[in-house]
Order: sequence, then C-alpha cells, then structure tokens
Amino acid sequence: MDATEFRKRGKEMVDYVADYLEKIEKRQVFPDVEPGYLRSLIPDCAPQDPESFEDVFKDIEKIIMPGVTHWHSPYFFAYFPSASSFPALLADMLCGGIGCVGFSWAASPACTELETVMLDWLGKMLNLPEEFLAGKDGQGGGVIQGSASEATLVALLAARTKTIRRVQSENPELTEADIMGRLVAYASDQAHSSVERAALISGVKMKSIPADDTFTVCGSALKKVLDEDKAAGLIPLFFCATLGTTPCCSFDKLLELGPICNKENIWMHIDAAYAGSAFICPEFRHFLNGVEFADSFNFNPHKWLLVNFDCSAMWVKKRSDLICAFKLEPLYLQHDHQESGLITDYRHWQIPLGRRFRSLKLWFVLRMYGVKGLQEHIRKHVRLSHQFEHLVLQDERFEICAEVVLGLVCFRLKGSNELNKALLKSINEAKKIHLVPCHLREKFVLRFAICSRTVESTHVKFAWQHISQLATELLKTWEQNHHQQ
Amino acid sequence: MDATEFRKRGKEMVDYVADYLEKIEKRQVFPDVEPGYLRSLIPDCAPQDPESFEDVFKDIEKIIMPGVTHWHSPYFFAYFPSASSFPALLADMLCGGIGCVGFSWAASPACTELETVMLDWLGKMLNLPEEFLAGKDGQGGGVIQGSASEATLVALLAARTKTIRRVQSENPELTEADIMGRLVAYASDQAHSSVERAALISGVKMKSIPADDTFTVCGSALKKVLDEDKAAGLIPLFFCATLGTTPCCSFDKLLELGPICNKENIWMHIDAAYAGSAFICPEFRHFLNGVEFADSFNFNPHKWLLVNFDCSAMWVKKRSDLICAFKLEPLYLQHDHQESGLITDYRHWQIPLGRRFRSLKLWFVLRMYGVKGLQEHIRKHVRLSHQFEHLVLQDERFEICAEVVLGLVCFRLKGSNELNKALLKSINEAKKIHLVPCHLREKFVLRFAICSRTVESTHVKFAWQHISQLATELLKTWEQNHHQQ
Repeated sequence: MDATEFRKRGKEMVDYVADYLEKIEKRQVFPDVEPGYLRSLIPDCAPQDPESFEDVFKDIEKIIMPGVTHWHSPYFFAYFPSASSFPALLADMLCGGIGCVGFSWAASPACTELETVMLDWLGKMLNLPEEFLAGKDGQGGGVIQGSASEATLVALLAARTKTIRRVQSENPELTEADIMGRLVAYASDQAHSSVERAALISGVKMKSIPADDTFTVCGSALKKVLDEDKAAGLIPLFFCATLGTTPCCSFDKLLELGPICNKENIWMHIDAAYAGSAFICPEFRHFLNGVEFADSFNFNPHKWLLVNFDCSAMWVKKRSDLICAFKLEPLYLQHDHQESGLITDYRHWQIPLGRRFRSLKLWFVLRMYGVKGLQEHIRKHVRLSHQFEHLVLQDERFEICAEVVLGLVCFRLKGSNELNKALLKSINEAKKIHLVPCHLREKFVLRFAICSRTVESTHVKFAWQHISQLATELLKTWEQNHHQQ
Repeated sequence: MDATEFRKRGKEMVDYVADYLEKIEKRQVFPDVEPGYLRSLIPDCAPQDPESFEDVFKDIEKIIMPGVTHWHSPYFFAYFPSASSFPALLADMLCGGIGCVGFSWAASPACTELETVMLDWLGKMLNLPEEFLAGKDGQGGGVIQGSASEATLVALLAARTKTIRRVQSENPELTEADIMGRLVAYASDQAHSSVERAALISGVKMKSIPADDTFTVCGSALKKVLDEDKAAGLIPLFFCATLGTTPCCSFDKLLELGPICNKENIWMHIDAAYAGSAFICPEFRHFLNGVEFADSFNFNPHKWLLVNFDCSAMWVKKRSDLICAFKLEPLYLQHDHQESGLITDYRHWQIPLGRRFRSLKLWFVLRMYGVKGLQEHIRKHVRLSHQFEHLVLQDERFEICAEVVLGLVCFRLKGSNELNKALLKSINEAKKIHLVPCHLREKFVLRFAICSRTVESTHVKFAWQHISQLATELLKTWEQNHHQQ
C-alpha cells in the first residue's frame, strides 16, 4: 500500500469509525460469542501473498465486531469510563504518522517538551501545588504513563530506592537485603489491586489499612498500624492514598494522612485514577486538599477526560527521586544536551524504554474542548449518576450502598448476596446494558458507572426501568422458589 | 466536535499524514531546536473556551514539526528502526475507534482472541516450537507487551516466583527474604540496559557474563560464572540471552546456553527485540536454533516488521508461570467464563492492567503484506547494510568493527576514539543524516542502522559519500592540529 492508496483507505476508515460511533447505540452492548469463537473464523496461519484492503476491511464486521464489548455504547455502565473523543482520535492519527519513539529529548524534542508543558497545563487545571509543575526550572513535573498501575509501581520503586539509601546511611551495618526484608508499604483495604501488584513486583511487603464505614482511610487507622509495625522492627516506606476507590468511589482523608506520612518519612502517592478528572471542577477540588503532603499524584485522563487510552498523568515533587530509581546510561542512549538541566529524558521516569507521542492527544483535547467543555462533560456524568441514584431511592426494594459523589452508583436489592448475584446475571444475560459488581465488606453490590461520552438521561432512565423490571421478574420466581423450599 | 466534523477533519488528517510521509525526505532529519524551545511557543495554560480544529491544525507545522526527529526519513540511520506502514496506521485508527480496554476476555473477547491467534500466526512464521503456541488448548502462547523491557521484566518476575517456590519447597527453613537475597540473574555484558533495569525493579541481583571477541556469550562463559556463584551460595534463576545485541547485532549461542539453563533450573529468556523479525526469512532462522530450550521469547514487530509502536511480541511455554507471578482477582474483574480453560485474561500476563486492541495492527500488516512482502522488506534492509559495508571496506581509512549480519553496520575511522567522536559530531551537526554511537569494548564506534521503510540504495550511497567527505575534512584539520601540537 502506497500513500495514494492510504489516502483512499484512510478516508474510508474515518467514515467507518464515524459510522461506528454514531450508530453504536444500535449494537448490542455485550457480545454473544463464546470463548474460542474467533479461531474458527480465520485461517490457521498468515497468508504468503498479500491480501487486499477490501478483504481485510470486510472481515471487521464479520470477525471482529461480533466479539467486541462496546465500551462507548451509552448502554455500557461497567468498570469505569474509558475516554473517547474525536479530537483525541485525530491526535492519535498524527501520533501514528509521526511515529517517533520519544525515550529521550534528542529522540524527538517535540515529543518530550509538549508532554512536559501539557502536564503543566493539566496540573494547573487541577490547581496542583506549584512544586508538582516543571515550569522553566522546577524540581518536579509530570509524565504520561501507560496506566495507573505503572504510576503506582514507579512511585513505589522511587520510594524503595530513597528509603534504602536513607536507612543505609543511618545504619551502615545493614545490608540492602536486610532492609528490603523489613520494608512495608500500605494502602486502603479498598485500594485497587494494582497497588498490591506493585508491591509484589518490587518485592516489598504490603499491608492493608482498614477503611471505616464510609470506605475511607483516616489518619488514626494508618497511625495504629504504623505504630505496631515500627515496634515490630519494620520500616514503613510508602502509603498509597486512593481518591475515588474502584468499588464505590470513596476518598481517603489526605489532610489527616499526609502529615503522618511526612513525619514518618513515608512516600505518599495518590491514586486518583478515575476521580482525578473531576478535580478540574472547583466544586470537586476539595477532595484533593492535602495533595501538598504527597510525593506523587496520578490520575487517568484516559478514563474520564476524553483522552483515548493510554494516557495516565503522573506528577512528582522531585523528579530526581524517579530518575535515581532507574538511571542507567548506555552510550547509544546518550546525547549532547543531556547534562544541560533543561532536558527531560522520560525513559528514566517509566518502566518501558519506548514511548509514543501521547501528549498530542492531551493538546488536541484540552484545546478543542477548553476547560469549560471538559467541566461540562464531568458535570453531565455526575448529574446522570444522581439521576440514577434518585430512581433507585424511589424504589423501596433497593438500597444505595455508598454515598454517590461522582459518576458511580453502588446499589443492590435489599436481600441476600445470592439474590443480587441473580439480578446481575439476569441483567448481563439480557445484554441490553452492561454492569459489573463489587464487594463492599460482606455485601455483593452492583456498580452503575456513567461511562459513555454520549450517554444521556434517556439511557439512564431506560437502564433503570430495565433493571427494575428484571428485579420484579426475579423476585417473583425467587419468592416462589423460596416458598417451595 | 461531532461525527460530521470528524469525518471532515479525519480526512484532512489522513491527507496530512500521507503528505508528511510522502515528502519526509525533504525535511531535515534532525531538528534545529534548542532545549526548552516549545514552552515559549505556546500559552502558559489550557484555554477556558474551545479552540477550533483549524487553530490546532496550523500549530502542527508551527510548533510540533520544528522539534521532531524524523524517524521515518530515509536519512535516519540511528538506534534501530521504528516500524511504520500504512496498513498499521489504518489498524490503529480502528483500534482508537473501538476504544475497548482488553484486560480480560469479557472486557472485549475479540481483543483477547485476535491477539492469541495473531501470536500463533507470528509464532508459526518464526517456526517457533509448538510448545510456545496457544493452539486450541496449549499450555503456552503469546501476548503483546508494550516493549521488550516489559517482556524481560515479566519473564524475570515469573522466574522469581517459580524459583522462590521451588527453593522453599526444598528448604522449608528458608524465608522468602533469605531466598531473595541469594537470587542472581545473568545476561551478556552486551545485553540491553533494560535487562539490568528489570533486575533493579524486581530486586534481584544481576551479573554480566563476558561476551567473547565476537560479542557473543558462549556456554563456557556462563558455566564459569554459575559454578563460582553456586559455590558462593547464590541461587541462579534467570538468564537473558540476546539475539541481535543493540551495540552490534551479535548473537548469543543458544545451543550451548540452553542446555545449561535447563539443567540448572534457570529460566532462559530470549531477547531478540530487533533481530527477531528477520527470523521469518529461512536464511536467518538458524540464529533461533536452540529456542526450544527457552522458557520465553520476545521480539518487537514494532521495530522491524512494519507494525507501528507499540507491539512487542512475547511467547511463553507455560502460561501458568506468568499468571502465577501476578494473579490477583478483585470481584469487579471477575467474569463468568473465567475458569473455562479456554479463556485468556491478558492482565495476568503484563505489568499494566489496561491494554489497547493492538493485535489489529498485526492482523492488518500480516494480511496486507503477506509473509513474502515482509520477507522482502527484511531482505532489502539486509542488502542495504551490506551495500554500506562494502562502501566502508573500499575506503582504507575506515574499519568495520563487527560482522554485518542483518541491517546494522558498526564502523569507525582507524584512529583514536576522539577522532571518531569528532566525526560523529560533524555528521550529526550537519544534520543531513542521523546516527548514534556505541562502545565495543574500548572502542568508540559509529552505528549505521538501516531504518526507514522507504530507504533505498541512493540514500545509502548519499550517506556514505557525505560521511566520507566529512571524514576528509576532519582528517585535514585533525592532522594539522596534531602536527601543531
């Protein structure tokens, strides 16, 4: 395929994508396929000779689409949103066309510099403390990671190196292995599984801090565990605070936790993967109060800020902390400007070496929506979740299981976990909408997350009527079965 | 921006990308900008109100392009190639449009299943042993990682968990910390820095195995270090063999190393990031002989197989080894089909949780080039590197520093490192072509890598004439200065 054919096919693909997104509502949100469906539809091995674009193109509807879960359908209420917008898609096309690999400043200066400046823009939108911004010669700054998992891991690795060095300088008799064996990291028992995973990867012990009845970790809960662990000879090094937990969107109390971490030399990382986008609205910014105590902060514009996956924004107060955790410099990666102080080589900030020109997506989205357009998007989603909450509250068979603050509603039938599992099963088997569950303590709970960019009040109403009707049917047979037993 | 405007703007972007790639030769391969150039060109913060697409679009040439290193220019001979092709760009547009996040089978069955089958296609193209393929019910299989760095890290983590369990079952008195402190991983002293980094991240000690005069690690070199380390009470767990080292594209001797690793319970991972693509040509497949002894194998189609970044292909013989290193299962990530045995949940195979629908790029590229088209691409690059090699050999001022096997030529002026540094400086300051250096033992060496999809014999000839002329000018002043001193 040459450039001439690409012009033609590229435009056909633009239309296909536009059609797909315009009419996505008409597709069944969750596919009918069974595991292994695809293998039987395609050849056993790659063709020896080239096939035409037409051949490949017609297989999209035949082979791919029947197995797609449509994340951007307005009937998709599962997990958390995965962002998508037209400006981001345009930027991604440009990113692919340029196709640079921006691991160092020299490998493509624009790729590195736009990222630094875009993270400053975004940091200012969140009103992050000045220390987190790169500015012209700041000690901090932002970076785009692939996912919140990587951000947490990178923060933990930086904390590990920093703590080992500090403890060794205070106790020269201790070996690195001695110290490693005594390190301990913490997060809420409501934190995302990626935090435990980061600990697993880095070989650091991890402990859960019990959240309170509102699924929030407060200062005293952390303090209690810290005191016990220090008395037992452990070395606390890292606390991951969560703003907007995955099960129910609860918020740890930064203003209590931050000062404790600072006093105890514990790296405080904030994981606001989903909720962070909301902090661009002044009315939600208060959840971030206390970020001034943190060492690093992360949220995912690819969740709720209309920037397509992947774009996970991370800031640190001291970039040197990240760099020291990683820096290795073979000659083929060195370049002339390296020691000028103005230069950022992002490969020292992340797990992979290579990186795409992802900041283009931020640049397009922030400019073409403007701060006000993005605030509107957030507010619409919050409004819709409250609409759903009100519908649930009007039906006394149901209960709301956690305070509804942003775009997530946790709800269930008043009744057993088995009953609620049966309800979820009937919802997901009907495939008119798609939800996933969570556990809140001993309770099996249904999560209703406002996800799609194009979801409107009518979709939410439809979803509720559908759930309510399935509940009626379920309760009828459930009571009969119960009665018979 | 709505779908109607996206249709218009998307087509303009297709034309922009086509123009960019068609005329890339006319752009200076390496930019003129100085560090910090971009900040002064754009506002301090994001706009409150939306800007138009036109406003953003015109800034691409004004702000971005002046700072781009043009990786797809036929005058780009630095690092290793970063793949780009029109079919891959089309697939990436589709990937963005679908915008699913395929962390589990249920999150988008097509995303998971196409990946499994494409990795089988690719594995068959390389003639990988059957054990590495997923097939209908295999124990092994492939996964797309973001980068070779992540593949190495994931392999090392799997080895770590497996070894700790084995050693603990044999020596119940040892704690995990005891074992961790004694683990040791190995790679060639020519291996990529990402291997050392993987060890750093996972907290495992790393040792270099000295390569021989041809920059190759042979069995006896590994054996010697292993014997010493075992005698000192260490526990060897991992060896990363490199096929196609970054400095000079040398190949470790798998057929000698593999049996040693198998006998010693050492996980052998093969990093063929660059060279792996060449193994689809029968004449280069012999470098992979011995892969049957490996536990995991990785190469980057995003380097040399015309699939745009990111697409790093990794295979394991036992998928359970990866999964055991990672598996954590919160309720919101569970789904009905989970335990059916047919299901792959790729989040257990990788560091991040989220993942794009990257296998679409493989599907488009493998079908629209066909195996033969891809073989042609590899063979053209190898031909061009030999052309450059011959040009160098005809000039007795120069020497070739390592055997030219694939698309990389390591060369230098016969003379001091300072002389060669001066030559590289004059080449990169002229900005007609772009190269990066390496060290081979004590020698500072220039690397000439055939990179662009569109590079032809004329570009290689031009590059050589240019280098040769700069060398003539340099040697003149160099000798004068030398004479004066």
